[in-house]
Amino acid sequence: MDATEFRRRGKEMVDLIADYLENIEQRTVYPDVEPGYLRSLIPEEAPEEPDTYEDVVKDIERVIMPGAASPACTELETVMMDWLGKMLKLPEDFIAGTHGQGGGVIQGTASEATLVALLAARCRAVRMILASDPQRPETGITSKLVAYSSDQAHCSVERAGMIAGVRMKKIPTEQSDKYAVQGETLRRMIQEDKAAGLIPFYFCATLGTTPSCAFDHITELGPICNAEKIWMHIDAAYAGSSFICPEFRPLLNGIEFADSFNFNAHKWLLVNFDCSTMWVKKRSDLIGHWQIPLGRRFRSLKMWFVFRMYGLKGLQDYIRKHVELAKEFESLVRADQRFEISADVVLGLVCFRLKGSNEVNETLLKRINNGRKIHLVPCLLSGQFVLRFALCARTTESRHIREAWQLITQLAEEVMQELPH
Amino acid sequence: MDATEFRRRGKEMVDLIADYLENIEQRTVYPDVEPGYLRSLIPEEAPEEPDTYEDVVKDIERVIMPGAASPACTELETVMMDWLGKMLKLPEDFIAGTHGQGGGVIQGTASEATLVALLAARCRAVRMILASDPQRPETGITSKLVAYSSDQAHCSVERAGMIAGVRMKKIPTEQSDKYAVQGETLRRMIQEDKAAGLIPFYFCATLGTTPSCAFDHITELGPICNAEKIWMHIDAAYAGSSFICPEFRPLLNGIEFADSFNFNAHKWLLVNFDCSTMWVKKRSDLIGHWQIPLGRRFRSLKMWFVFRMYGLKGLQDYIRKHVELAKEFESLVRADQRFEISADVVLGLVCFRLKGSNEVNETLLKRINNGRKIHLVPCLLSGQFVLRFALCARTTESRHIREAWQLITQLAEEVMQELPH
Repeated sequence: MDATEFRRRGKEMVDLIADYLENIEQRTVYPDVEPGYLRSLIPEEAPEEPDTYEDVVKDIERVIMPGAASPACTELETVMMDWLGKMLKLPEDFIAGTHGQGGGVIQGTASEATLVALLAARCRAVRMILASDPQRPETGITSKLVAYSSDQAHCSVERAGMIAGVRMKKIPTEQSDKYAVQGETLRRMIQEDKAAGLIPFYFCATLGTTPSCAFDHITELGPICNAEKIWMHIDAAYAGSSFICPEFRPLLNGIEFADSFNFNAHKWLLVNFDCSTMWVKKRSDLIGHWQIPLGRRFRSLKMWFVFRMYGLKGLQDYIRKHVELAKEFESLVRADQRFEISADVVLGLVCFRLKGSNEVNETLLKRINNGRKIHLVPCLLSGQFVLRFALCARTTESRHIREAWQLITQLAEEVMQELPH
Repeated sequence: MDATEFRRRGKEMVDLIADYLENIEQRTVYPDVEPGYLRSLIPEEAPEEPDTYEDVVKDIERVIMPGAASPACTELETVMMDWLGKMLKLPEDFIAGTHGQGGGVIQGTASEATLVALLAARCRAVRMILASDPQRPETGITSKLVAYSSDQAHCSVERAGMIAGVRMKKIPTEQSDKYAVQGETLRRMIQEDKAAGLIPFYFCATLGTTPSCAFDHITELGPICNAEKIWMHIDAAYAGSSFICPEFRPLLNGIEFADSFNFNAHKWLLVNFDCSTMWVKKRSDLIGHWQIPLGRRFRSLKMWFVFRMYGLKGLQDYIRKHVELAKEFESLVRADQRFEISADVVLGLVCFRLKGSNEVNETLLKRINNGRKIHLVPCLLSGQFVLRFALCARTTESRHIREAWQLITQLAEEVMQELPH
């Protein structure tokens, strides 16, 4: 939608809201629908090609208004999570509209999804232990539980452990393994912890880490977790959106071993903040803890609108364009002997640095950000200060990449003249 | 704002957004302001009388745009929480823009505020215990902690205890005490628990319970909590908005004993969902746990707009009107000998029932809700099935009250003819 159409449609929407409010007394205060009414009113999958805006707006009255806020809010959410789950080719276990036991729920942020999964895992672990040893006092179990995540995992994972009051151990990763958690490392830590009397119960794998977009080896890690009855949660906050493209879907292989999976549709799938999409294999594991807040906004509406206005193909194009732009930036970096690429460029993130000291790279970063034309957030990889060029704006084009690179090289020249490197 | 003005202003806003997007490349990607820049740009308190819409919109460019999303989002939130805290006449301890150590933060829902307070209390308790006995193993402490709330408290309070993995005990209340927690009861439970080796650390008081809008005696309970170093959190989810009126402010007396306080501005203060406003006496107690999610929306914008478009007087008028309408409904109930009032009408909630069996009241409720003209949610008070008439829509007028009462009495007549009572 360009600016001209946005102006037109936005103003129509203002009138639609005003009409609704002016005539609200003609509506009933409570819906007259059977639970589950909504699913049959809309397709089972997102469209491949975009729907028209007129059709989308007409469906507000046809699909939503009969079910008002409740049950429409929950039902549209369940169906939208199925749509998105199918776009991602999730195993049927995770899709609510099948004979499986799983389904999806929208969280506010990935932090909440990690915590919700951890709480469900803690409940399941305590239940299993009490089932095998009913005499054991429940209060002592939690203090023996141990959870794991990569040392590259987002800080919210460690924080979830603090909130739930359980031990959270970081699994070391190596540059030579591309910062991915290896099966062997997890297996060894589990064995050591069990020998010490602890109870491993939760592992949070990351697909697309924040620092370098690294991918834990879930095809190796999943079977270990399953065998040890450890809940495997997959946090793909950033990378998850890309799995709607067949060429990136292999990155999600191993999902069949997971108990829960989450990514932020608000990060890279054109759905406005907040919309963190989470699936579980067994809905019953989550009962009582579907989410931390009890009230909820009607967040699935924005998924419905976006999926229909873009169509699956439009969304795939969007992802591909960002990855292509990242590759274009990578080529520019690689063509310049003064720079080096610090991690594989898999999606829309390019980790790079000047061949030289951390000091020279820190100074370069400061100059870049002080210019306020582009903004980079750095990271440390194996002690090296690394600049991160992330593609994340809807309107970014090739010319922005070239302009950015020109600016970066110009500032790099200045910095290199001033500082020893 | 009536529908005509809403249409006009809404369309202007659509243009403003489109203009912003069309010209976004002319803006810097990162703000050039000093932290704390925002406070001096706006008044220290909410206006008494409404500001003009033009002034509000002009301030987006003047106040927000220079600080963009960050730091404007956090800074406006802090100042808006001060504005609202001053409207409520909170003790200075809770106001960030003073020399105190406290301040406010917006949560999504009261459930999150209860949990955040509980987590902060748990941290503080563990820290205090370790300070007095450094040899004590930390893992064993949590299993000894005990939290309290009223048996009338919202289910989210019990749930917060489950999430944090601590014992949560319900304090019994009596009809003769108007369902308020009494100091003596809390004191006795604390003594018994301490004698049993437990560590009381958290009490969640409720001002305006969900079933009957009962008020715990915080002037009695607060000093007990303070003496026992128990964190007192006050959940005033519904009632809190009314404390901006001097005549209802005495309901909050005792706030000076609290460590944290929360109410839902989205419930009764014309701010759209979600916006649950929470204050703490010591900011440092919350560090690391200001909120459960890490990402955040710019929720303070809607507080800013609403406070300025209504002014404090407009907001007070809105609260008073709902209370008056509730009193009007109460008079209608009291004037009809077949009905009785089941709990004091303090604010906008009227608990009432037919003098008769629970069955007859349940049947009446079903008939009322099946009509879909008004919607009532019932509760049980001391085993009695009670109907709850809650004033909560912006556009409710006296005629709606009279129409509702006419409908209720008409259905009551039908039910009483059909059923023995």
